[in-house]
Amino acid sequence: MGSLSPDGPDHQRVPARRGVAAHVKHGQVVKVINTSGKQVVDTWAFKADDLDEWLSMEHSRVALMKLVPAVGDTLVTNHRRPMLYFVEDTTAGIHDMLMAACDVYRYELLGAIGYHDNCTDNLRNALQAIGLRSKTTPSPLNLFMNVPWADDGKLAYVRPTSEAGQYVCLRAEMDLIVVFSACPQDMIPVNDMRSTDAHFTIT
Amino acid sequence: MGSLSPDGPDHQRVPARRGVAAHVKHGQVVKVINTSGKQVVDTWAFKADDLDEWLSMEHSRVALMKLVPAVGDTLVTNHRRPMLYFVEDTTAGIHDMLMAACDVYRYELLGAIGYHDNCTDNLRNALQAIGLRSKTTPSPLNLFMNVPWADDGKLAYVRPTSEAGQYVCLRAEMDLIVVFSACPQDMIPVNDMRSTDAHFTIT
Repeated sequence: MGSLSPDGPDHQRVPARRGVAAHVKHGQVVKVINTSGKQVVDTWAFKADDLDEWLSMEHSRVALMKLVPAVGDTLVTNHRRPMLYFVEDTTAGIHDMLMAACDVYRYELLGAIGYHDNCTDNLRNALQAIGLRSKTTPSPLNLFMNVPWADDGKLAYVRPTSEAGQYVCLRAEMDLIVVFSACPQDMIPVNDMRSTDAHFTIT
Repeated sequence: MGSLSPDGPDHQRVPARRGVAAHVKHGQVVKVINTSGKQVVDTWAFKADDLDEWLSMEHSRVALMKLVPAVGDTLVTNHRRPMLYFVEDTTAGIHDMLMAACDVYRYELLGAIGYHDNCTDNLRNALQAIGLRSKTTPSPLNLFMNVPWADDGKLAYVRPTSEAGQYVCLRAEMDLIVVFSACPQDMIPVNDMRSTDAHFTIT
């Protein structure tokens, strides 16, 4: 589940460019810390005893009737059950529910030479590290990611507005597996052009 | 592949509240006709020889950097390959890429008594009717669906603006299976509170 951080005895590390999966019990609170301030953390959750039920952005948009979740909102699964309750957010509340996780195809198209770390592989590897496998790559909750929309529907990728040490807290509404990826995207500005460590706690 | 319509000798019917799947060859154009004008048509596409590759709304948003596709845009797969090219649109261009297909859970939450037809089951049944199966229910391209967004990210479900007989044309950029569902949603205004037949041609 990642090594400990000097920042806190209970802090788990999501290494830059890598993913980490962890078990979370119903009622526990996951705190996701943007250690550097500019790191997007792709976040997935799966029902602990049935990985075919997962945190769904498209179902959560229907439940919330909004493009970005905020404190007080409950994100739901693809079976429309409550999965994560948004408890606290010390950032300005800019997160993304729209964009697919990066993958080998994305970096190929961006002109990367050879293999580029990516969130889709990080999800698979993180689950594999705890003996699990998902049939699919759900569209992630991209914490701290700054994708503004315009009146005409145009989207943009912009540097995160969050600052070092800011965090969000999400409460598990069922037993689940959470997976975080410190997005390795360094070819567009979503992580300020570099990937850094993030941290989390489960309490 | 649905019965023929009196409206045209080559028109296939998507019966109200039901789904239909069809094979489409690379280069063929699929015309989707809003026969009644107010019917949302949930649309999926799968690579003909690999149903694990499918039309992806979350990957298409990254490719297009917009919330709604328009003529001249190419929608892509979850492997970021071109799948459907938007050739023509006689509507005002209002479609949806944000909302999950309706399902039994959705209608339960809306208070439906007993089984309610739904697009998720329509997808599965339509594929099964041609001997196929998908592991997942991708988030659909909701043709004609009117989901406006506000500056603050709030979304709404609104009656379609399309008129009877208006249509969109999509060109297949690979051999694929297309699936249409005449959305049976009659508990919110997306289909003007009732489900009607839609039609399509493949040429």
